[in-house]
Amino acid sequence: MPQIRKDPLVNRWVIVATERARRPASFNDSIPTDTPVDQCPFCTGKETNLIEQYDEIRVLHSINPLFNPEGGFEKSRHGLYDVVNNCGAHELVLETQDHVANIADFSLQSIAHVLKVYAKRIDIHRQNPLIEYVLAYKNYGVAAGSRAIGHARSQIMAIPVNPVRVHNKVIGAKRYYESHERCLMCDLVRQEIKDGRRIVSMNQDFIAIVPFAARFPFEVTIIPRFHHHDYALSLSGHEDQLAQIMKDVLTRYKKYLNDPAYNYMIQTAPFKAMATIQDEYHWHIEIIPRLTRVAGFERGTGFYISPIPSEMAAGYLKEE
Amino acid sequence: MPQIRKDPLVNRWVIVATERARRPASFNDSIPTDTPVDQCPFCTGKETNLIEQYDEIRVLHSINPLFNPEGGFEKSRHGLYDVVNNCGAHELVLETQDHVANIADFSLQSIAHVLKVYAKRIDIHRQNPLIEYVLAYKNYGVAAGSRAIGHARSQIMAIPVNPVRVHNKVIGAKRYYESHERCLMCDLVRQEIKDGRRIVSMNQDFIAIVPFAARFPFEVTIIPRFHHHDYALSLSGHEDQLAQIMKDVLTRYKKYLNDPAYNYMIQTAPFKAMATIQDEYHWHIEIIPRLTRVAGFERGTGFYISPIPSEMAAGYLKEE
Repeated sequence: MPQIRKDPLVNRWVIVATERARRPASFNDSIPTDTPVDQCPFCTGKETNLIEQYDEIRVLHSINPLFNPEGGFEKSRHGLYDVVNNCGAHELVLETQDHVANIADFSLQSIAHVLKVYAKRIDIHRQNPLIEYVLAYKNYGVAAGSRAIGHARSQIMAIPVNPVRVHNKVIGAKRYYESHERCLMCDLVRQEIKDGRRIVSMNQDFIAIVPFAARFPFEVTIIPRFHHHDYALSLSGHEDQLAQIMKDVLTRYKKYLNDPAYNYMIQTAPFKAMATIQDEYHWHIEIIPRLTRVAGFERGTGFYISPIPSEMAAGYLKEE
Repeated sequence: MPQIRKDPLVNRWVIVATERARRPASFNDSIPTDTPVDQCPFCTGKETNLIEQYDEIRVLHSINPLFNPEGGFEKSRHGLYDVVNNCGAHELVLETQDHVANIADFSLQSIAHVLKVYAKRIDIHRQNPLIEYVLAYKNYGVAAGSRAIGHARSQIMAIPVNPVRVHNKVIGAKRYYESHERCLMCDLVRQEIKDGRRIVSMNQDFIAIVPFAARFPFEVTIIPRFHHHDYALSLSGHEDQLAQIMKDVLTRYKKYLNDPAYNYMIQTAPFKAMATIQDEYHWHIEIIPRLTRVAGFERGTGFYISPIPSEMAAGYLKEE
């Protein structure tokens, strides 16, 4: 059973996957090639561990789960060190029956359907009082951390603690609201529309920008133009617009960045703090193409180095 | 001139390298091959921008500096966004005259010499009141963020702000000291020696452990067995022991992990807070082999997933 261990100096939690521990030689950086269709474990009929099927979309338990739906939330202590067991869920969303790799190639209707399944899974885990956060995310391509390529899928992780990145965003949103009595992201959307230089795509309900302080080249954030703290509670009625802007951004990546590996992560509000941050927190989606490597400076300082200004990155992505 | 931009939501600084901005096509992931000796820009006699020579070790200004020694510390504001200009220094340490790639292959005397040059550069930048932190670090191999391979070198970054990772470590060290009136790292060293399972190497002055909550497989931290907050101020008299344990750990990486890419980062105390954290902060060196890729879960939550327990990783590195 994997453990969650805490670093005593920086209070950072790390998930230690004891069950899939591997020998040193298995960590070589060999690149998996595209899985042949007849060997793809994700094509229809070959799935195992099925949890639920939503029309053509199947949700599975991960074969090597990092969080386990059984067992309560227990803490233990080893001298200076804290350990928590890893109750939660680790699910795979198979987005398509056919062997299509990139969600950018889906129809708008299919993308909207995937987005709705994320919301359904978030709402299911919301019922479990041990769960503090659900992350819906995608690893596309080996450089983005995917272990096998060739069949579009994403992941749902339901976890028993509020992640540090989300916590920091909640703190930032509250700090701004306290001084201005306005939502930071709502103000930011207004400023970005007025400025225009960092906009990659926009429709009635959403805006896609390269953030002013982007950490990675061609990073994009999709922000609702309406205020809401919770992705799953506010998606209804906006799924077609969100599908349109997701497809537009991911198609621009494919076209202008040569089909790069990428991650996207839905950043919705944490469950327990929810009652107190409805006016302050504004959900959004981060999309990060994996074009560069983090080096010693970033590891040692926590600073990021962006090799291209946000305005220039947005300009390249907007080329027609 | 590069800028430092702040993300308004999480107060995260990002260095935006405007001068070496590149077209999208230049971000392909092609792997540079080993530079032939006759084309190596770092072999003796071919260096440019020399700052200082310490026997066989040369210190250069970076050709594409991320921090610039000229210009003061100026902040400006663009609506919601804060920008700081990037005063500081970005130096290259050429560790050897000959075309030797990995510091693990150096003599103990040469490694000790490199470690002393780091201390000298830190002490020089300490004199500049605009500088809050100096990071001495190494990117070895392309997966570690190095852009050209084949000639051992490291980097010195002198920066005008206290990095968030160092800041968090100072806070953690202070928090522990306030409750225990002892240094956390001193206690941690005692516990690790007693436990023994995570020790990779140890000599009279230093211990090398796989941290209990390691973020990356085979990550190692080297910790002085004596208490001191500042690397440069305490190295004297310990450089041979530090060289010995560095060489031992890096040789074990080379042998058991098949000469992996790695980063190491010296984590010394920040300058301005120094007077108040001498008892609390304990310097150390983080060494991270680059065997896995960070994926969407880590990007979205700030959590790390370690695919191998620390005790098992230490066991593999200790094989004789």
